[in-house]
Amino acid sequence: MGTLAVVNSAPLGFFDSGVGGLTVVRAVQELLPAESILYLGDTARLPYGSKSPETIRQFADEDVRFLISHGVKAVVVACNTATAHALPRLREHYRVPILGVIQPGVEDALADPKTERIGIIATRGTINSHAYQHALAQCRTGLVIHGQAAPLLVPLIEENWIDHPVTRQILQVYLDPLVDKGIDTLMLACTHYPLLIPMLKDLLPPGVRLVDSATTCAEHLRRELTRLELLAPAAQSGKLELYLTDLSEQFEQLAHQFLKKSPGRIRRAVLGG
Amino acid sequence: MGTLAVVNSAPLGFFDSGVGGLTVVRAVQELLPAESILYLGDTARLPYGSKSPETIRQFADEDVRFLISHGVKAVVVACNTATAHALPRLREHYRVPILGVIQPGVEDALADPKTERIGIIATRGTINSHAYQHALAQCRTGLVIHGQAAPLLVPLIEENWIDHPVTRQILQVYLDPLVDKGIDTLMLACTHYPLLIPMLKDLLPPGVRLVDSATTCAEHLRRELTRLELLAPAAQSGKLELYLTDLSEQFEQLAHQFLKKSPGRIRRAVLGG
Repeated sequence: MGTLAVVNSAPLGFFDSGVGGLTVVRAVQELLPAESILYLGDTARLPYGSKSPETIRQFADEDVRFLISHGVKAVVVACNTATAHALPRLREHYRVPILGVIQPGVEDALADPKTERIGIIATRGTINSHAYQHALAQCRTGLVIHGQAAPLLVPLIEENWIDHPVTRQILQVYLDPLVDKGIDTLMLACTHYPLLIPMLKDLLPPGVRLVDSATTCAEHLRRELTRLELLAPAAQSGKLELYLTDLSEQFEQLAHQFLKKSPGRIRRAVLGG
Repeated sequence: MGTLAVVNSAPLGFFDSGVGGLTVVRAVQELLPAESILYLGDTARLPYGSKSPETIRQFADEDVRFLISHGVKAVVVACNTATAHALPRLREHYRVPILGVIQPGVEDALADPKTERIGIIATRGTINSHAYQHALAQCRTGLVIHGQAAPLLVPLIEENWIDHPVTRQILQVYLDPLVDKGIDTLMLACTHYPLLIPMLKDLLPPGVRLVDSATTCAEHLRRELTRLELLAPAAQSGKLELYLTDLSEQFEQLAHQFLKKSPGRIRRAVLGG
């Protein structure tokens, strides 16, 4: 019983290529305030979304090893590209529970029985992996699914051009083919994209439902922790520890923006070795 | 004499964060067709332009060690950010001659005695390092220098949005403050930017001179190799060997575009260890 309590008090480990995964952290902090979180952002090697599956699998493996060596009780892959390329292999290699962001989004998208025509925007890596397309098709037959790589959105968000007319034009370039196909649901399959929700709502026809990784992942995580009896003691006040492989003022500012509060002290993580 | 000939026949080593440095390679191949070239693009960890000086110094160090272990006779840092952050330290640590892209550009910009008001566009890392600003100011007093970080240009070029109206708008955002300040010279301080020269010529007032890293670096390299008696035997037919730390179809296509011909077989480089 003593051991159990220690495990439950341990932090959840999150990793992402950069600070985009903090949108997931924020949602988890709201839903599960007792959970402590250890977050690793691989800012030295970001982005993941344009790199090959082999390279992403190697990076994800190093990220998970870092988290496990810091005593986390479970791992959340807070990055769609890493989930798409690496999740099955990570689960084979490690005993700690490992959750991704794809399955929760898929379940949420299909929670509405009227969902029929689904658009997905994501990095090129996530789209080309077909991980969303396969997961959706496995859950329901007869869906019409359109994947759209949207590789310029992450750089625009990282530049904080969130309200810029150029961002609106670029979004239009990516959304037009999906809107032409009459989508009823748009999946934001990258943890950066929640910051674009106001502009997306403005650009999409009324009635198109947005499904984002952050909130759906938090709810999925609560269910899984409950099932595994790994929830933190209710009296615990969860802490956030933030590690990045490259530190800079820009990443710190971005972290603040994604988290919507100060990230506190950020430490530099050294991976591998 | 036998040894000398072997050294002179050895390849030149080039490295960059990705394939942008191939604009320099292309210029060198035109000017020095006898030189063999071994090129390393650190595509697994690109971009360098948004990361911290410490991280870039570590990456540059690993890149140079890879090239030296492959027997190069000299190293060209075909990346402005790496030149800005790492060149002095690399020269301290290694005995092989190491050339950067900044000094050649600066000399070319100042070759015209009428140059007075200089704009620089580059990554945020290069601009914040003040390496160009210092190098220019050391060569001539009384210059008016304006640095403009242009972080979205690399992603746009890598997406091949070279002629896209959105790229034109974004360029305008970056150029307007420089044009307002009456620049007579614009330095393209990133090896990706030569691909934007047609659009830049179209957007800038007539009379603004463009100075790019690629051609200036090639001429500088010829002078240095001559001075060091390291030129390849004139009868040699130079070969290009291309290594990337991450392989993907997109990088291969980009390599073709920067080189303006097929890059041939690309090998995967494993660094460190």
